[in-house]
Amino acid sequence: MMAGTLSIVGVGPGDPELMTLRAARLIGSAPVVAYFCRENHPSQARTIAQAHIAPTTEELRLVYPFTTEISVNDPAYHQNMAAFYNQSADRLAEVLASGRDVTLLCEGDPFLYGSAMYVFDRLRKHWNTQVVPGIMAMNGCWSQAQAPMTHGDDVLCVLPATLPEDELADWLKRADAAVVMKIGRNMPHVRKAISQSGRMEDAVYVERGTQGGQVIAPLAEREGTAPYFSLVLLPGRKGVR
Amino acid sequence: MMAGTLSIVGVGPGDPELMTLRAARLIGSAPVVAYFCRENHPSQARTIAQAHIAPTTEELRLVYPFTTEISVNDPAYHQNMAAFYNQSADRLAEVLASGRDVTLLCEGDPFLYGSAMYVFDRLRKHWNTQVVPGIMAMNGCWSQAQAPMTHGDDVLCVLPATLPEDELADWLKRADAAVVMKIGRNMPHVRKAISQSGRMEDAVYVERGTQGGQVIAPLAEREGTAPYFSLVLLPGRKGVR
Ligand SMILES: C[S@@+](CC[C@H](N)C(=O)[O-])C[C@H]1O[C@@H](n2cnc3c(N)ncnc32)[C@H](O)[C@@H]1O
Ligand SMILES: C[S@@+](CC[C@H](N)C(=O)[O-])C[C@H]1O[C@@H](n2cnc3c(N)ncnc32)[C@H](O)[C@@H]1O
Repeated sequence: MMAGTLSIVGVGPGDPELMTLRAARLIGSAPVVAYFCRENHPSQARTIAQAHIAPTTEELRLVYPFTTEISVNDPAYHQNMAAFYNQSADRLAEVLASGRDVTLLCEGDPFLYGSAMYVFDRLRKHWNTQVVPGIMAMNGCWSQAQAPMTHGDDVLCVLPATLPEDELADWLKRADAAVVMKIGRNMPHVRKAISQSGRMEDAVYVERGTQGGQVIAPLAEREGTAPYFSLVLLPGRKGVR
Repeated sequence: MMAGTLSIVGVGPGDPELMTLRAARLIGSAPVVAYFCRENHPSQARTIAQAHIAPTTEELRLVYPFTTEISVNDPAYHQNMAAFYNQSADRLAEVLASGRDVTLLCEGDPFLYGSAMYVFDRLRKHWNTQVVPGIMAMNGCWSQAQAPMTHGDDVLCVLPATLPEDELADWLKRADAAVVMKIGRNMPHVRKAISQSGRMEDAVYVERGTQGGQVIAPLAEREGTAPYFSLVLLPGRKGVR
């Protein structure tokens, strides 16, 4: 019996029409779709892909073990996550071994800060894999904000808000264009880092870009925290030629 | 009479199936499609979109005034390009003023080093515009290379090969993950900058990613120049958790 193929498929930033034709085709024909989610929560990737999932398709939920109980600075966090990814990879391998293909759904593009990378890293050596790129959150957000990002020889830096404030500020001073991702509870020090770099005036905050409830606003006019699905855009410095 | 809307639409990196559902819809229903191209050459964006362009759709070719005759270091280059973008914006505005919608096709995503940004910058104040993101060349290339790019708090830097060698090397030393774009005739100093940064071993060269004639190879094994449609990937440093 032939082993199945694992297709790791990006479904884009939220608007279901921002999925690629290939993603729609692979989701529609998949015997099994898999996705990461939190307990008692719908998966964002599944919600985006929903219209394409056939009624006969089997669904494999990969439920994160915890979200807020343990600090990411606690070594136990990384041990638990490693165990979770091992177990998730085993569950996917079991389906592949039975000869069935699996389509693993990912928000945005699978290979930019995606959970799917951790199971891919574990499975790539032993199984057939293919990767289908997706529109990233930042692409969706800068299109909605109508903010051209890089002209000429601008450098673009993609920065996780989990970096320490000084490191973030340092990157922001060097970069021409920048995107700060994974904002959420990191908002207070992101705001400080952007002020420190002198770029607050140009910072555009985007929440739930391309989704229902989208917010686009100058960061300077926002107060308080931000949800998980938010990022900050700093368009490049080189404008109209 | 109502003015038309300018839709700036990314068509992805080359494989027509990597277009979004929205791009396919907007191209299929467009009374006018426009695209940049060189004289006597097909437009890459049009080739990608071809299957969706209706026979009744009018086509507006925006033909670059020159490609290799004048050096980019000559001020005349920038004057000529500015005049070209002014004229292109005028031609698009004329169609919009006649009440027809125009769909401007762009390789990859329109707002990452796209020519469309220069006409957008000129038209945005006076006309209705919308922007549809596209899968970028780098997304297509790292998916084909099966190279996960950013884990954890990796920083990703997108670098144009047009930067001087030392500046490029400096960015490559700082970045976790990096993509070097616009290689072409800049290949010799890109290679030197990557060596200088000590990262040659991890550099992946991708030519015509997702297109016919795709090449994926360790950069260390490549010699000589590279075509326009090529880039180099440097995956992030933080692997399996
Ligand atoms: C774990 S990363 C996944 C990124 C995804 N793989 C991509 O290609 O964009 C999650 C972060 O992406 C950003 N994000 C995802 N969807 C978003 C949206 N619709 N609007 C704004 N930010 C979003 C937020 O910064 C969020 O914290
Ligand atoms: C002017 S930039 C346009 C980038 C495009 N807007 C995007 O979103 O990727 C052109 C550069 O993109 C890269 N590129 C475009 N298509 C590519 C492909 N199919 N394979 C490799 N590189 C490509 C090359 O580095 C090329 O020099």
